[in-house]
Formats: sequence, C-alpha cells, structure tokens
Amino acid sequence: MLVFSGPSGAGKGTICRAVRQGDPSLRLSVSATTRLPRKGEVDGVDYFFLKEKEFREMIANGQFLEWAEVYGNYYGTPVDFVRQELEQGRDVILEIDIQGALQVKKKFPEAVLIFIAPPSKTELITRLFARGTDSAGEVQKRINCTAAELKLADRYDYIIVNDDLDRALNKVQAIITAEKSRPRFFNTYYSRFES
Amino acid sequence: MLVFSGPSGAGKGTICRAVRQGDPSLRLSVSATTRLPRKGEVDGVDYFFLKEKEFREMIANGQFLEWAEVYGNYYGTPVDFVRQELEQGRDVILEIDIQGALQVKKKFPEAVLIFIAPPSKTELITRLFARGTDSAGEVQKRINCTAAELKLADRYDYIIVNDDLDRALNKVQAIITAEKSRPRFFNTYYSRFES
Repeated sequence: MLVFSGPSGAGKGTICRAVRQGDPSLRLSVSATTRLPRKGEVDGVDYFFLKEKEFREMIANGQFLEWAEVYGNYYGTPVDFVRQELEQGRDVILEIDIQGALQVKKKFPEAVLIFIAPPSKTELITRLFARGTDSAGEVQKRINCTAAELKLADRYDYIIVNDDLDRALNKVQAIITAEKSRPRFFNTYYSRFES
Repeated sequence: MLVFSGPSGAGKGTICRAVRQGDPSLRLSVSATTRLPRKGEVDGVDYFFLKEKEFREMIANGQFLEWAEVYGNYYGTPVDFVRQELEQGRDVILEIDIQGALQVKKKFPEAVLIFIAPPSKTELITRLFARGTDSAGEVQKRINCTAAELKLADRYDYIIVNDDLDRALNKVQAIITAEKSRPRFFNTYYSRFES
C-alpha cells in the first residue's frame, strides 16, 4: 500500500495520476467526501460525493480506514475496497490528507507513506491561485496550514520535493522498486535453498 | 552507509564494483583480513592483508567496526576510515559478511543493509567452481552455509536476487534514491516554510 499525501498544491494529484499511467496494475483507492464536486470531477471516479448524514453513518458503522475533517469538509477512505485489493495481492495507492495517512500507518504498519512537498512557499502560492478552484480566502487558509503540515513530514517513510514532475516520478518509481525488495516479499525464495 | 553482504558466490563483489563505477562519489571501506591474497588482489586496495597477531591486536584496541571469523579466517572493518568519511558527509559502501553486517546495524541503525542473494542453488555451485579460487572442499563448505545464511536475510533492509547484473544494479540505484528521500535528509528544507 502506497500512501501519498502532502499540503494542498504540492502536486500529489498530478503525481498519482502519472504514477498510475506508468503502471496500470496499481489500484487507486477512491475516497469519499462531503465537499462539493469541482468542475469535471466525477462521482465514483474522483471521489464518492456524499451528504454529511451519509458520511456520518459510515463513520458510525466503522466503514472507513481513516477519515478526517479538513477545511470544514469530511474526507475518508472506505475500507472495503482497500482490503479486497490487498487480499488479492494488488498494490493500492491512497491519495489522502496528512492526518489520514498517519492513521493508516497505525492500522497498516507496512503501508509506505510518501510525503509530496512543494518546492517553495512562493511556488505553492502560485500553484494554488493558478488552479483557480479555491477562493482567495481558501488559498490563505491552506497556506497557513502548510508550515504545520510540513512538521509532520518526518513521520513519513519518504519525502519527495516536487520541483520537477519527471524527477519526482523517478523517485516514486525508485521507492516502489526499493519497497518490493523488502524481505517480506522473499518468503518463497528461501525455501528453494533448503534440502 | 550502504552495507552489502550475502553468501559467497552471490556476486556482491561484482555488484559493488559496478555500483562504484556508476557513482565515483561512493567510498568503499577496505576490510582487513588474515586470509591469503587471491591472484590479482592488492594489499590496501582489495583488503588490508594482516597477520593473525596484528588482527588480534586491532580487536583488542577496539579498532574494528565489526569483525568475524569466517571459514577459519578473520575479517574486519577498520572503524576510523568509515567514521571519517561519514563525518564529511560522504556515502560509504561496506562489503562484508552476514554476521558483520548485523553487528554494524546494531551500532549504526541508519546503515542500509542489502542482502545479495544467488538466483538458485545450481547457479551458486556453478559460480563458485567457475571462480576457480577455492578448492572443492572449500566450495562444499560455502554451499553448506548458504541455506543458514539465507535465513538471516530477513533481518536485512533489502534483498536483491542477483539473477541479472543490470537488473540488480537498477535495484541498488533505486534503493540509494529511495534512501536519499528519507525525512532525515530534509532538515534544512522545513525551515524555509516557517515565517
């Protein structure tokens, strides 16, 4: 399980899309949210868009791997999909906020947490305004949170500063290759040397 | 600090040489040993070849990062060189036996242990005989140890099965890239976002 998170505007969405294009066998977990769809976002593809009442019911029923309230909206990862894919031996990508990622790591210690960080404060401000989907007030709120969020990055397994998309993608690929070389993937290998 | 080890004949020497050719900034720690030089091996380059009495004095003086007796010979890593290079911010490669690698990990938990494993038992036997430097009896001794050594591999950070040199080198490179993305390398980065 690969978990991508990072401050708004760091580019985790772009990186996740590109990683999945490079390796279509990776399954993306679709999050649920109570925020309104942005232009072009499709229910069930980008997010499951839920009413607050529906979301609260799923919380009460234990149907989230993690959930959080961010900027006044709820976001969560439905647990069923993730569990099914992992049980079938597939790699799952989660693109979730920082609080959620740390919750996942507690429940699944073998989850690999990647923090996507913006190259600079100036660049982050530029990107958030260029996106054009948030009001100036929302952009301000997000920037205020970034310094605090960066302090949580040292609880992650890896940090990638997204200064160049190709370079960032190479690093993600290297992390996947390295993590596939962990001893737990070699259980069947050892037995071939006995006898 | 990158520590390579694995059973005799798994190809760790070949991999270490190729990794260093690809990145000359990596420093190779030269081990000390009491075994006789093989054809072409140079004192101070391949090993420091010591008499058993000299080796025991260095043990007594605490001058080894790790040492071990393997197949009747002593091998050890002189601590001074490694410490100097690390203090100057350089990456150091150690090519040492399995017992020694686990000793290093205890003293330097941030050391990255890579286990180079042979692709199969048959291939391992072929390689050991092809090398032509060990007697048939020594080859037999080494093979007998391999199954036991493989059981220690799950204490390593990474395992690379050396079935193809280029593929193995790509994996080493990926591990280096991934390890350079660990949070401890980003201390100066965070401070740029405060204020």
